[in-house]
Amino acid sequence: MQKIVTLKPYSLITPTASISTGTHGGRAKCLQRLIRLDLPVPTTVALSFETVHQIASGQLPDTGSILNAFDPGTLFSVRPSSADPDWGGPSAVLNVGMNDARHAEMIETHGETAATALYLRFVQSYAVHVARLDPDMFLAPSEPNAEALRTALENYADETGEPFPQDTAAQLGEVLRSMARAWEGTSARLLRQAKGAPADAGLGLVVQNMALGVGQDESGSGVIQFVSSQTGQSQIVGRYLSQSQGRDALKQAKGALFLTKDARGPSLEDLAPDIFAQLQGFGATCRQKLCEEMQIEFTIDAGKLYVLDAIRIQRTSRAALQVAVALAEDEIIPREDAVLRVEPRALSELLHPQVDPAASRDLIANGIAASPGAAVGRIVFSSAAAQASAARGEPCILVRRETQPEDIRGMHAANGVLTERGGQTSHAAVIARGIGTPCVVGTQGIEITHSRKKLVVADGRSFTEGDLITLDGATGEVLAGSVPMQQPELGDAFQTLLNWADEARDIGIRANADTPAEARMADAFAAEGIGLCRTEHMFYDQDRLTVMREMIFADSAEDRQATLDQLLPMQRADFLDLFIIMAGKPVCIRLFDPPLHEFLPKEREDMRDLAESLDLPIAEVTSRVDQLSEFNPMLGMRGVRLGITVPEIYDMQARAIFEAAIAAGEQGAPIVPEIMIPLVSAKREVELVKARIDAVAAAVRIESGVEFDYRIGVMVETPRACLRADEIAQHSAFLSFGTNDLTQMTYGLSRDDAGRFMSDYVKQGVYAEDPFHILDKDGVGELLQIAAERGKKSSPGITMSICGEHGGNAESIAFCREAGFDYVSCSPFRVPVARLAAAHLSIRDALTADR
Amino acid sequence: MQKIVTLKPYSLITPTASISTGTHGGRAKCLQRLIRLDLPVPTTVALSFETVHQIASGQLPDTGSILNAFDPGTLFSVRPSSADPDWGGPSAVLNVGMNDARHAEMIETHGETAATALYLRFVQSYAVHVARLDPDMFLAPSEPNAEALRTALENYADETGEPFPQDTAAQLGEVLRSMARAWEGTSARLLRQAKGAPADAGLGLVVQNMALGVGQDESGSGVIQFVSSQTGQSQIVGRYLSQSQGRDALKQAKGALFLTKDARGPSLEDLAPDIFAQLQGFGATCRQKLCEEMQIEFTIDAGKLYVLDAIRIQRTSRAALQVAVALAEDEIIPREDAVLRVEPRALSELLHPQVDPAASRDLIANGIAASPGAAVGRIVFSSAAAQASAARGEPCILVRRETQPEDIRGMHAANGVLTERGGQTSHAAVIARGIGTPCVVGTQGIEITHSRKKLVVADGRSFTEGDLITLDGATGEVLAGSVPMQQPELGDAFQTLLNWADEARDIGIRANADTPAEARMADAFAAEGIGLCRTEHMFYDQDRLTVMREMIFADSAEDRQATLDQLLPMQRADFLDLFIIMAGKPVCIRLFDPPLHEFLPKEREDMRDLAESLDLPIAEVTSRVDQLSEFNPMLGMRGVRLGITVPEIYDMQARAIFEAAIAAGEQGAPIVPEIMIPLVSAKREVELVKARIDAVAAAVRIESGVEFDYRIGVMVETPRACLRADEIAQHSAFLSFGTNDLTQMTYGLSRDDAGRFMSDYVKQGVYAEDPFHILDKDGVGELLQIAAERGKKSSPGITMSICGEHGGNAESIAFCREAGFDYVSCSPFRVPVARLAAAHLSIRDALTADR
Repeated sequence: MQKIVTLKPYSLITPTASISTGTHGGRAKCLQRLIRLDLPVPTTVALSFETVHQIASGQLPDTGSILNAFDPGTLFSVRPSSADPDWGGPSAVLNVGMNDARHAEMIETHGETAATALYLRFVQSYAVHVARLDPDMFLAPSEPNAEALRTALENYADETGEPFPQDTAAQLGEVLRSMARAWEGTSARLLRQAKGAPADAGLGLVVQNMALGVGQDESGSGVIQFVSSQTGQSQIVGRYLSQSQGRDALKQAKGALFLTKDARGPSLEDLAPDIFAQLQGFGATCRQKLCEEMQIEFTIDAGKLYVLDAIRIQRTSRAALQVAVALAEDEIIPREDAVLRVEPRALSELLHPQVDPAASRDLIANGIAASPGAAVGRIVFSSAAAQASAARGEPCILVRRETQPEDIRGMHAANGVLTERGGQTSHAAVIARGIGTPCVVGTQGIEITHSRKKLVVADGRSFTEGDLITLDGATGEVLAGSVPMQQPELGDAFQTLLNWADEARDIGIRANADTPAEARMADAFAAEGIGLCRTEHMFYDQDRLTVMREMIFADSAEDRQATLDQLLPMQRADFLDLFIIMAGKPVCIRLFDPPLHEFLPKEREDMRDLAESLDLPIAEVTSRVDQLSEFNPMLGMRGVRLGITVPEIYDMQARAIFEAAIAAGEQGAPIVPEIMIPLVSAKREVELVKARIDAVAAAVRIESGVEFDYRIGVMVETPRACLRADEIAQHSAFLSFGTNDLTQMTYGLSRDDAGRFMSDYVKQGVYAEDPFHILDKDGVGELLQIAAERGKKSSPGITMSICGEHGGNAESIAFCREAGFDYVSCSPFRVPVARLAAAHLSIRDALTADR
Repeated sequence: MQKIVTLKPYSLITPTASISTGTHGGRAKCLQRLIRLDLPVPTTVALSFETVHQIASGQLPDTGSILNAFDPGTLFSVRPSSADPDWGGPSAVLNVGMNDARHAEMIETHGETAATALYLRFVQSYAVHVARLDPDMFLAPSEPNAEALRTALENYADETGEPFPQDTAAQLGEVLRSMARAWEGTSARLLRQAKGAPADAGLGLVVQNMALGVGQDESGSGVIQFVSSQTGQSQIVGRYLSQSQGRDALKQAKGALFLTKDARGPSLEDLAPDIFAQLQGFGATCRQKLCEEMQIEFTIDAGKLYVLDAIRIQRTSRAALQVAVALAEDEIIPREDAVLRVEPRALSELLHPQVDPAASRDLIANGIAASPGAAVGRIVFSSAAAQASAARGEPCILVRRETQPEDIRGMHAANGVLTERGGQTSHAAVIARGIGTPCVVGTQGIEITHSRKKLVVADGRSFTEGDLITLDGATGEVLAGSVPMQQPELGDAFQTLLNWADEARDIGIRANADTPAEARMADAFAAEGIGLCRTEHMFYDQDRLTVMREMIFADSAEDRQATLDQLLPMQRADFLDLFIIMAGKPVCIRLFDPPLHEFLPKEREDMRDLAESLDLPIAEVTSRVDQLSEFNPMLGMRGVRLGITVPEIYDMQARAIFEAAIAAGEQGAPIVPEIMIPLVSAKREVELVKARIDAVAAAVRIESGVEFDYRIGVMVETPRACLRADEIAQHSAFLSFGTNDLTQMTYGLSRDDAGRFMSDYVKQGVYAEDPFHILDKDGVGELLQIAAERGKKSSPGITMSICGEHGGNAESIAFCREAGFDYVSCSPFRVPVARLAAAHLSIRDALTADR
């Protein structure tokens, strides 16, 4: 049964016609806006999505009635108009209406060259895009002369068995049908869906009177924009080419003019100062009225200027930021709008150097893009080599099968990290993101032999220590040699936008920072405090590691206390540094968390060294290492379990924190330190640790004669702690959710081991997303909600936050806002991104509420 | 301020006096019952818990008023009366009231020997128990003559500086005070708490007129009971001794008479047939009216029979079972009552194997047989090692110099306990009996060095951790190596009681069984099916292990399929065995669960062997082992993750199950096999595996031409699976909770690693109980409840069960009943215990409902 076409087949675009992006596409809507601004737009009609969809289904409207909208005997262009220009669409077709008769007439009115060029161009694009003939036969470069035209027409007739169509209505009908069908083809659909288009995304079409751009008097076409697509700074960019159509001026350098006066050659401003001034005026109008930086496509037809189209300028992240800020500073758009116009992920691009897009790339391997930015350096295979390299001031890339906690110093020293194993949340990935080091993990097809310091890639090439490679942490690509970089420059616009974001934002953003360097970065990025300071990283310095090991081997309580007494001033200095840097902002310190065996050597040789330095028989060292080794270290003797079993460690840390807080106060940076207990699963754990910490505080108060405050809270990272949040909250000033571990336990999934099947899992849709990357709302999220509800109910004033890797994620921030959390904490590098993402959420909420 | 004593200090026990076990203790209550039965009980008064507590606090009531209840000039005994006789109490004191004057009188009335014996006995026990003088000085064996009495009185005066008290009221006051204080002493409290007494358990006292048992005419004392304490079978047991008091007849073999006619010597039946007949009548009355088998303590005073006391006979578990069944069969008590009278844990004692009497024994030491049953295991020297061993599924014997409260968890984990020190009431002995673990204590001639993990026995042989030994808890023998065992023979009463239990029970009991031997045991114990068959254990046989390893090293899909094709017939045979043994009862098979690396060698040497047998370079073997190794294997690539990543393994298993089911049907054991998917955390995992299994089923149906049914379900063992039970249930015929793993993940606690701090944690009350032993209702339990609720809501007909270690626990069964689960599954040995425990719950529920 045939469907009845009820829609009007077209709308003439007038200032009052009923045209919207959602029904006719962005180009149609934009053209209406230009017409409303009284810009000289040729007569245009728009076909709606619905009409085009019916055309694709075989119901062609009466094309004659479309032609009625135009002066008879004129030519037309047909262009696509989808809801989002990024979704692509069929190529424009120009000069519809040309035929033998009109060609003959125009030889008289416009000269033979112009007339023939117009006809040839139409025949070519009709043959290729409408009749789907072989492009090679029609698009070979040739002078637009009579010979070329005749050949094209003959080829057309030979290939199709019919002469080139001469009826304008028939030509238009075929053009519309072919464009409609192209849109609904499978490959076009897949391509646009990959860019985020919905399955039923529609296509509109616009039919526009041609301003010819060829002929007598000054005729030609060009494009112009008023800011740089690279930087967003004011700059007139574009080209103009006499006797050309469409975007020819951009394609064909030869003969194309600069727009504004230019030392390199002639310009449109020289050639036609009035027209240039008119264009400048149009640009200003567009910016002011359309609230955007537009690229204008214009044609001069026999000395008269026409505006055919205008589109939002293409822009890099940097330019997007600059444009948005400038528009708001000029009060063309509100600040909130400027904030919304910059995507949070665009910021993270700005924060890292990038491989120069223009550089040639010698790809040697492909892995998971685990931490953004690009890095060049010489290969090193060990943390020691990385530190040595850094000491020599030589950039290096640390290449490991996988990283271990003892590699942290090496990772700090390296410019980039490459691992064979691991996923988005492997040790390497997490640490690298935390310290802002570019990182590629889970790299397919490479083979690393640490012992022989050799890296062999899939194509058989082999690299060794000292060879230069480049990591692209944005794409996961590993490149041979040193590839040129683009350095980030964070301009004023960056700061301005983030300040505006902060004004709008209604959830706190803190940073996870373990070292003074990270704290400084957190502070530079205006984090509102440190949400997670992991103290264990402080023990990996060689001098401290030795003392740590002595503590582990201490035979008596006195010996253990003696080593802790050595660690105390070091920890105190660590904390004082952080307190001074954060200058009064809150700092949340997580008590010692990892299992002790992480501090012991793994290799026989290192054990021998340790035995020697501790003056112990090697058998004793190996037996202690054996004793402390665990089947599942993640679920073993760590966190509060260690704190309760060997309470002297937490005692020492609490004392260091309190003494540092007193010293910070004396140095003008008063602080209320926050102390966080890790891996809690029962309220009694909190009671026991809290009692000891309170006792240490009392002792320090008495010794020092100084009063100070502190807050004790819990890192909620076991499912049980979530379920028992009501009773745990009764003893806690805050609950901070460690979503990494919580995700591991909720799924029963070690993130260190998940790499081997995670990509399989996500590919098969077993998990919609890697839950270590995107917070699992259904499972982990429900536990967070349960905990938040119960915690608040039992202790209404309690502070709630998350401090896992998910903290910087827009989705997680949305979740935390809805759950009523006070802040999120993320790696310092993610802080600007998080500030912006949080602002987006509150602005959008306000917009929704206004409606 | 002095408290005012408001309670009446004593109650004369009459048939209507207000006496209860909860206020006056069990002995007082029992005496009242005997009085109600018109048994010849001497006049008795009872002091309540409250009164005795006040006495201990220094508020002695007016003892004179107590004496008013008795005829003047008579003697008394004072005995303890606590709520539970097992809780112990101070020793009885007899002949209170004796003094010089009465001694002189009684020489006239009862003869000098009798009078002196009475006085001497009183002086001795007063000196030791009341005045706390040195027992050696007073309890040295001596004839009760005038000389001995004079010495005792002189010694008393010398030691105390005062003459022996002559006033009856004063004597009674001191006796009461000393008994009250002894009860409240620290060691008495600790001892009774170890037996389950509450901290505030009270002591009552009974003051009874003495029936003397010495003097002219036939006088004496004895005890009698009518069934064997060992077996519970009818048998008259006891002794009678002329001219004796209390339980002397039992202590002193010389001169004591048998009760019933006996070839070995004279008997009470010979001596006084009327009195013997009277006693028999009392026994029958007690059994009929008190609904119990009682041991009666009697005295003949000048030819007249008195009943001083009666207590429930002591009994082994076997006897308890026999007595309960016999009482019910005689319709003295209802069957439900008989079921309730047997503690589930008593059954587990009956189930213990014994050392095969025919086996040759390499005796290495001899100790006290402290807890019955025999056990074989590897030596461990610490509780932590015992727990680790249990976690690995390796039987072990805990060897300690002596045990401490913190060893309880290790004792639970061990199969047997051996201590160098201690007696029948040492910590080790008491606890081991309580938990039904075979135990030998006070072992002569062994030397244990915990620090060097060494056990040296008397003949100089030395044993170390990991060496196999056998304990015979029935004889106290310790044997080298693994000695063959004889399985227990369970008599008719056992079967009868469990049948009664099954009539009352309202939740299903299945067994976890992986092997034909276990399945046979499950069937023998009337498990209603197999709730968990772990297939991976089937791959550890040497021939299969080789094929497994070949599969792991397979380079191509074809090679892998070839190894799986080899495994298929083996698995099919495994399953067919189980199906035939279970003869139509349901069998739930868990698909392959462990990580592959569990099947690879750990030691370099074994890797070399493997490389040789696979004809691979050793480097390839070590690199594959490396590749597959995991940081946290528990949370790694195992269970359904392996099933999805290497789906051919599950395909093979499903095919083996279906083909075995068809074969079982043909052999007359039709079955609907249940297939369980392990470690699920997302519903899509279930969909994917289910789709493949369904496809295998379809293929097998076509190939075989046989129709068959099966059920696919999920092992719920991740917190996420609990939370998402609604959607997971939609694809599952059943949900079975693996509470071991679920506990690990809910707490973030690896069972294998928890041993190192668990005893510390329980000791400090961080966890009320080891959550791997007793189901954590608050955390894990809430997840179970959430899952059960959501699962039932989305799929009302779904079967629910638990199949973890907790399955056989009375607490867990209670939980599962309340949550509406269909069955619990536990180790075959626990099945009878679970059947009984489940029956207790439903009977108690019915009793509560009746009230």
